[in-house]
Amino acid sequence: PGPDAAAQAAAADRNGQLTKPPGALGRLEDLAIWFAGWQGTDRPHCDRPQVVIFAGNHGVVAQGVSAFPAEVTVQMVANFRAGGAAINQLSRTFGADMAVHAIELDQPTQDFTKAPAMTEAEVVAALATGWAAVDPAADVFVTGEMGIGNTTPAAALAAALFGGDPAGWVGRGTGVDEAGLARKASAVARGLARHAAVLDDPLEVLRCLGGRELAAMAGAIARARAERIPVVLDGFICTAAAAVLERAVPGALDHCIAGHVSAESGHGRLLAALGKEPLLNLGLRLGEGSGAALALGVVKGALACHSDMATFAEAGVSGG
Amino acid sequence: PGPDAAAQAAAADRNGQLTKPPGALGRLEDLAIWFAGWQGTDRPHCDRPQVVIFAGNHGVVAQGVSAFPAEVTVQMVANFRAGGAAINQLSRTFGADMAVHAIELDQPTQDFTKAPAMTEAEVVAALATGWAAVDPAADVFVTGEMGIGNTTPAAALAAALFGGDPAGWVGRGTGVDEAGLARKASAVARGLARHAAVLDDPLEVLRCLGGRELAAMAGAIARARAERIPVVLDGFICTAAAAVLERAVPGALDHCIAGHVSAESGHGRLLAALGKEPLLNLGLRLGEGSGAALALGVVKGALACHSDMATFAEAGVSGG
Repeated sequence: PGPDAAAQAAAADRNGQLTKPPGALGRLEDLAIWFAGWQGTDRPHCDRPQVVIFAGNHGVVAQGVSAFPAEVTVQMVANFRAGGAAINQLSRTFGADMAVHAIELDQPTQDFTKAPAMTEAEVVAALATGWAAVDPAADVFVTGEMGIGNTTPAAALAAALFGGDPAGWVGRGTGVDEAGLARKASAVARGLARHAAVLDDPLEVLRCLGGRELAAMAGAIARARAERIPVVLDGFICTAAAAVLERAVPGALDHCIAGHVSAESGHGRLLAALGKEPLLNLGLRLGEGSGAALALGVVKGALACHSDMATFAEAGVSGG
Repeated sequence: PGPDAAAQAAAADRNGQLTKPPGALGRLEDLAIWFAGWQGTDRPHCDRPQVVIFAGNHGVVAQGVSAFPAEVTVQMVANFRAGGAAINQLSRTFGADMAVHAIELDQPTQDFTKAPAMTEAEVVAALATGWAAVDPAADVFVTGEMGIGNTTPAAALAAALFGGDPAGWVGRGTGVDEAGLARKASAVARGLARHAAVLDDPLEVLRCLGGRELAAMAGAIARARAERIPVVLDGFICTAAAAVLERAVPGALDHCIAGHVSAESGHGRLLAALGKEPLLNLGLRLGEGSGAALALGVVKGALACHSDMATFAEAGVSGG
């Protein structure tokens, strides 16, 4: 489904009557009108934002692509559940409901340099986990991830979907050194070569080069579209997962905005390829949905201004 | 007074122990450590932010420098008091206490192209209004303004304090056309020529070329320093008022961060002159403290992460 054109037009009309010079709230005005279309109301809101984190493990860590050991994935899931991670604090700050789905952490994907990362059954199960995780009553949706090693599958997806030198898509992740960066680029290049036959099929790219939490994010973003819930995208990994949908069905991300551009080097390039301009640029590179959750503050501010300000007529203020 | 170096060091130490890769929260980490210094605690907070709006009228509107009539100042003050303006919605969204001080609205400043904008008694009274408006119990301070015509005195202050062609400091304000822009540049140039004798004295610059709400903002920012309350600066007018303090006493704005860079063309240049990097860049140009209030969302997120996240030891997570 697409945005509600009538609600969008009504919101644009309302925007022109609010007590401010035309355009003085800049991108906040565009945001509010955009949310109006997806929420189907001229008074959009961010009262029930939902944050869903998916976690998965990756066989490609055998290629030495992460600064942290794989056991950190399950440890961080416990930290999410105990309320101790960054995303817990950000969700609380902006009044978001937060859920965590750990997907088969004791069964990492296959090392994609040697085999498809997932079987068809596995990728379908992960997509379905994402699909089922979305609360249809949410008014804004954020999804994030945890998975040691997952900037490497994300870079592989980006390279497969948009082309270009693998080295241009890999970055420091949680903090690898130069040698680690070279190992990441090499793993991506070998993965692309091994799965060359499927590179023109975005869902096969997801299966062969992605990971369970990436597939789940894609499933959740697709479900949000079916429910017409606007989505705030997080960083490189989330955006790479989302890009699978866009390459499979152009326009599939029309209900998504970019919450931020991260410090992970491929993210800005990926957003540009998708035509998304980020709301924030604060050097984050944590994942967990943290950049998108932080952007909820901007969304809340934009929608509060649009939906609750007085008009010139209501306030008795002279127009320009 | 300066920041508490011990609190800052303790916060930096805590930051290194939190459950995230080093540096993964980017500027949020720097922000938290900076707030720790000014608040004198290793667990800084944004639980009692205060937003104070000052309003004033300007004789220089006689030069045709605004797209709106001067009566809008008092009308917007009524709108602030009724809760209908953008800043009301943003203050509510981020839990800020908001106050409005209308300063002698029926007595505009003198037209600075013809006389000093204020007498000594008037500028001192406005500075004192600002000084008295700060709640010493606030943990973060935001100040904003309303005053039809006030981008012109702001541009005059910027030009007087930092030099350069007046045309380079004036912008569209609430939306003047090309001819209005030329009138603004001309008014600033004539103001600078008339008050050439005082241009090396920042407080005299404020008196001769500023306005009551600009002086009040400067007084409030100085008081926040005395109380060691960190300040989030708003747009061009707020920053121009603040710049008076920095030129009078270098380092006077060390307790201030830039909440955003506005679409008013001189603002980015002014922030660069002050060495302040903005948190947000969303094309706002409304004033009222709106950009700074919106940045409170980022501040709240940063401080919540820093002060409430679990450490690696607390969460039982392996380090990198």
